[in-house]
Amino acid sequence: MTNHQRAHLIALDWGTTRCRAYLLGDGGVVLSEREDHSGIMAVTALAAAAGTPVEQVFEQVFDELCGAWLAEVPGIPVIACGMIGSNHGWAEAEYRRVPADLSALGPELTAVRTSAGVIVSIIPGLISEKALPDVMRGEESQILGALIGVERSHVGNLSEERVVLLPGTHSKWVRVVGTTVTDFTTCMTGEFYGLLTRHSALSLLAVRSDLPDWAAFDRGLNVATSKAGIGGILNTAFSARTMVMTGALARNHVEDYISGLLIGHELAGIRASWLPEGSNEVLLCGNAQLSERYRRALECQGVRVTLAVTRSAATGMWQVAETAGLVQESTAVHGSRHSDHRLEGNEREDAS
Amino acid sequence: MTNHQRAHLIALDWGTTRCRAYLLGDGGVVLSEREDHSGIMAVTALAAAAGTPVEQVFEQVFDELCGAWLAEVPGIPVIACGMIGSNHGWAEAEYRRVPADLSALGPELTAVRTSAGVIVSIIPGLISEKALPDVMRGEESQILGALIGVERSHVGNLSEERVVLLPGTHSKWVRVVGTTVTDFTTCMTGEFYGLLTRHSALSLLAVRSDLPDWAAFDRGLNVATSKAGIGGILNTAFSARTMVMTGALARNHVEDYISGLLIGHELAGIRASWLPEGSNEVLLCGNAQLSERYRRALECQGVRVTLAVTRSAATGMWQVAETAGLVQESTAVHGSRHSDHRLEGNEREDAS
Repeated sequence: MTNHQRAHLIALDWGTTRCRAYLLGDGGVVLSEREDHSGIMAVTALAAAAGTPVEQVFEQVFDELCGAWLAEVPGIPVIACGMIGSNHGWAEAEYRRVPADLSALGPELTAVRTSAGVIVSIIPGLISEKALPDVMRGEESQILGALIGVERSHVGNLSEERVVLLPGTHSKWVRVVGTTVTDFTTCMTGEFYGLLTRHSALSLLAVRSDLPDWAAFDRGLNVATSKAGIGGILNTAFSARTMVMTGALARNHVEDYISGLLIGHELAGIRASWLPEGSNEVLLCGNAQLSERYRRALECQGVRVTLAVTRSAATGMWQVAETAGLVQESTAVHGSRHSDHRLEGNEREDAS
Repeated sequence: MTNHQRAHLIALDWGTTRCRAYLLGDGGVVLSEREDHSGIMAVTALAAAAGTPVEQVFEQVFDELCGAWLAEVPGIPVIACGMIGSNHGWAEAEYRRVPADLSALGPELTAVRTSAGVIVSIIPGLISEKALPDVMRGEESQILGALIGVERSHVGNLSEERVVLLPGTHSKWVRVVGTTVTDFTTCMTGEFYGLLTRHSALSLLAVRSDLPDWAAFDRGLNVATSKAGIGGILNTAFSARTMVMTGALARNHVEDYISGLLIGHELAGIRASWLPEGSNEVLLCGNAQLSERYRRALECQGVRVTLAVTRSAATGMWQVAETAGLVQESTAVHGSRHSDHRLEGNEREDAS
């Protein structure tokens, strides 16, 4: 209880497959966090199965995750980001058009009122309205948090132009100038990985392995980023089957080989189509396991990698809550308790 | 019965998801054909579920499909091609290494003897032993049949160098000189289509439509083969979701848009990586629906398309049976009853 007396904000990173709840104190420091698998997909399925209105199930999950905090700190404001603001979420929040300054107020936060009278304020996502439009929900808060982390840790300053990469089910490549997102593009790399290793003919050959085999990953990476990969993933994927048949690849290395292929093709594609010429640095914001794969792949390509601070979504949501006046602006910039370069907690499993 | 008195060969095109049986008469003419869905995957599953040896189930399926023909023409020889010759098939047949002349005898046919004493002779597949090895089973017989069809219909002659494309779950791009396969490569395009439209986040948006929407297909094709597609399918796939969200794509057009994207990326990749410089003609050997999509895509790219004769696998297997002495060599080359340019019956649903 004593620990919670300084709590100022509940921040929810509520995505497709997972909900993370943070209890934040002075300056946005993480006092406590909880997580469960009641992403919006599970909630939707549960509501459909039970014949219950979906809003009611969202409220139940929210109570389970945050009920104790709400009881301890009555009236504490609640902010949320992610797919919870999509048309399959609790309430549909707007998209802000890019260029959009993440540290300035854009459209209003979208308010949901629970039956107990608690207001949950949902942060708008971003939309890039180009020929092939692109959208994100949740990553905007991670990006803002990652940029604040960069400034706090004196790795760089906020006026710079940079590329932020948020790997995941749907990887986001984002160009920012200061805290303004100017453009972004999505690669469904993580989803393709799941499809190939769970549902394809290749999955029949694969034997799951507990530890990554980096040699197999590097083989895939090298194929994808060399002349052998010019035909694209549609053409290289079959090699995961034929190399097992010819004895050139062990079955328990198939998944890491496919991971290397996919990440390699993503990088090659993004370099050719989107990455600014001469761009040789990326701010990488993802979970530890995935970031290690992307770091390896990027460094192989001569791109310098800065790892984002952990819990960047929470840091970003705190900043938005301050800007929106939901919490008192900090008199000083507080160092995050978690401002080390460990990455756990930044994974995005899905987005739009 | 009268019709069957001239029957000389039973030819089986037995793949992963389907078995096609042909009763062939003088010169390889198709007298009768049967098909069912007892591909090797279904047979394997059935055997596992019933605790029956898999050979016994293959024999049951064979009897169901061909028992009446065998009873009518005792001693009729039986030849087979496709995944039935894989290590998950009835008996494992060798691979021939390319370059391989399909009209000459390579390794022996692999013989399976049923409990009733019928010998089924399985045609070897092909392997291309390059850095990323490639394999086919069944397509070698289709290719041979398609080439014979080209000669018979005076569309070209057999000494030419040409590219044969066999679209399907695993599309095969094949270089031949005369009847010799010199190289080939596989694209898992059809499998990716199935994964994206059945198992991905995009599938949730898609509403199946009975008729193809060519405008949606062409949009996907144009994206994949233009500057917007340089990032590859990992990058463009997400547009099937965002364009639905922005109202730019109707839900019942999502699948055709994805089809266009995938085929476009396959062509762009193959042109960049594999297709000989200046190559502007393809012999296209697939089922009618899929061939129409590839024809459209190839012609958009300035590639001239010749459609292969129907039932090319049967024509190819007849030729192999002649070469192997299983049937009497025809005294004259007979025109096929099905030498028109309709394509039904050439589809390959899977391969290796």
